[in-house]
Amino acid sequence: MLSKNQIKYINSLKIKKYRQQHGAFVVEGAKSVLELLASDYTVEFVVATDDFLQNYGSIPSRPTVDWILATPADMDRLGTFQSNDACLAVAKTKENAFLCADPGKYALMLDDIRDPGNLGTILRIADWYGIPKIICSENTTDFYNPKVIAASKGSFTRVRAHYTSLPDFIEGYLTQHALIGAFLDGESLYDFSFPQAGGYLVMGNESQGIGPEVGTRITHRITIPRFGEAESLNVGIATAVICDGWRRGLGILK
Amino acid sequence: MLSKNQIKYINSLKIKKYRQQHGAFVVEGAKSVLELLASDYTVEFVVATDDFLQNYGSIPSRPTVDWILATPADMDRLGTFQSNDACLAVAKTKENAFLCADPGKYALMLDDIRDPGNLGTILRIADWYGIPKIICSENTTDFYNPKVIAASKGSFTRVRAHYTSLPDFIEGYLTQHALIGAFLDGESLYDFSFPQAGGYLVMGNESQGIGPEVGTRITHRITIPRFGEAESLNVGIATAVICDGWRRGLGILK
Repeated sequence: MLSKNQIKYINSLKIKKYRQQHGAFVVEGAKSVLELLASDYTVEFVVATDDFLQNYGSIPSRPTVDWILATPADMDRLGTFQSNDACLAVAKTKENAFLCADPGKYALMLDDIRDPGNLGTILRIADWYGIPKIICSENTTDFYNPKVIAASKGSFTRVRAHYTSLPDFIEGYLTQHALIGAFLDGESLYDFSFPQAGGYLVMGNESQGIGPEVGTRITHRITIPRFGEAESLNVGIATAVICDGWRRGLGILK
Repeated sequence: MLSKNQIKYINSLKIKKYRQQHGAFVVEGAKSVLELLASDYTVEFVVATDDFLQNYGSIPSRPTVDWILATPADMDRLGTFQSNDACLAVAKTKENAFLCADPGKYALMLDDIRDPGNLGTILRIADWYGIPKIICSENTTDFYNPKVIAASKGSFTRVRAHYTSLPDFIEGYLTQHALIGAFLDGESLYDFSFPQAGGYLVMGNESQGIGPEVGTRITHRITIPRFGEAESLNVGIATAVICDGWRRGLGILK
């Protein structure tokens, strides 16, 4: 059964300070927990209802995981999301290891993405389009925020993020890479040829866009053509359309 | 000043039953209210803080709108969203008027979209890509839900929805129109030619996709190519990528 200390511990991990202190985070909901268990993350324990345990209680690849039984009422009190009340897991966070785009490949670069739902959606998009690396500005919302994990729908297990000062990163590690930024006044995405040498697709803050420190270092400014009256697109939507344009441009799958 | 009855009225409009009873809905936040005032919706009244009134209190095109002063504390208690606390408006809903795609044009068709945030995002995407008409199944979430209105970022003023039985609509009004559905096993979006005669881009429910009643009537099954491991894309993201593919295919703006 779930102890009071475990409840306290799980609830503390909803706050970034405690996630960093404990080097741990919470994954909620059956689908996300199953993806976590199938990944290379270290899992501390899984809390689940009797129903869930009877269906999934022995995951072959994880014989040593500690399963803790909880009542539906316990789950209700623990979870952030009403719909994810069958199980949750606590896993160890990964180190903020250095990442950069390999030659001929693209990575995402996020400049000050604040909304956890948007970051989670971007992880899912990156995973769909086969982009496993994301470089995040230090003020981008925390990868291990429960809302990011939930919105990523399991893609947090396959996409890695490196948090760093973007101007320092750009000055230090970019040589022949393209730094392609989404603006409202760039070249049409439909006409743009993504350089074969690889580089970074840069997306900016929800209301301010790409900030000046990164903006002045952009090598290619592109725009998603608009045909109607909406002022802008949500950053997750824009990321998907640009990733799709990049994949089309490469001519893969044709 | 704001009366108790007005507070009660505004709060009642958060519930669909009362929106239908009163034929009215609430628009929250400065940007959305300004777009509402610039639209052809009939506005009952605007509630705003002193600050907001000093900046926007006389909108030239709306000389007769009834402005009501409220304290920031009043606004806090009225609003659904913490960040939209400078003003809100109550407007009359529009009739569920019949809509269909004009010859040579495309409209969206939504089969059982449940999440208000997704519907709002889809309105914004439709507005960006110049699609002013959306046909919604009767179980699609209410257009006038405050979360739909908020997520649409003003696009609710430019995009119209018609709620109807989709099988009846398809049987009754579709002749030479294409009914293009997004599935996980269709023809690649990158190879697909959108018929010039026009038609409907059909998006399905968040977890079930397009239901069988609509699914059996689809004329073209298409898929967004996947390059990584994510199981699916969010319905808003998929709508944007398909609308973008359609616009590219038409060769407009080249």
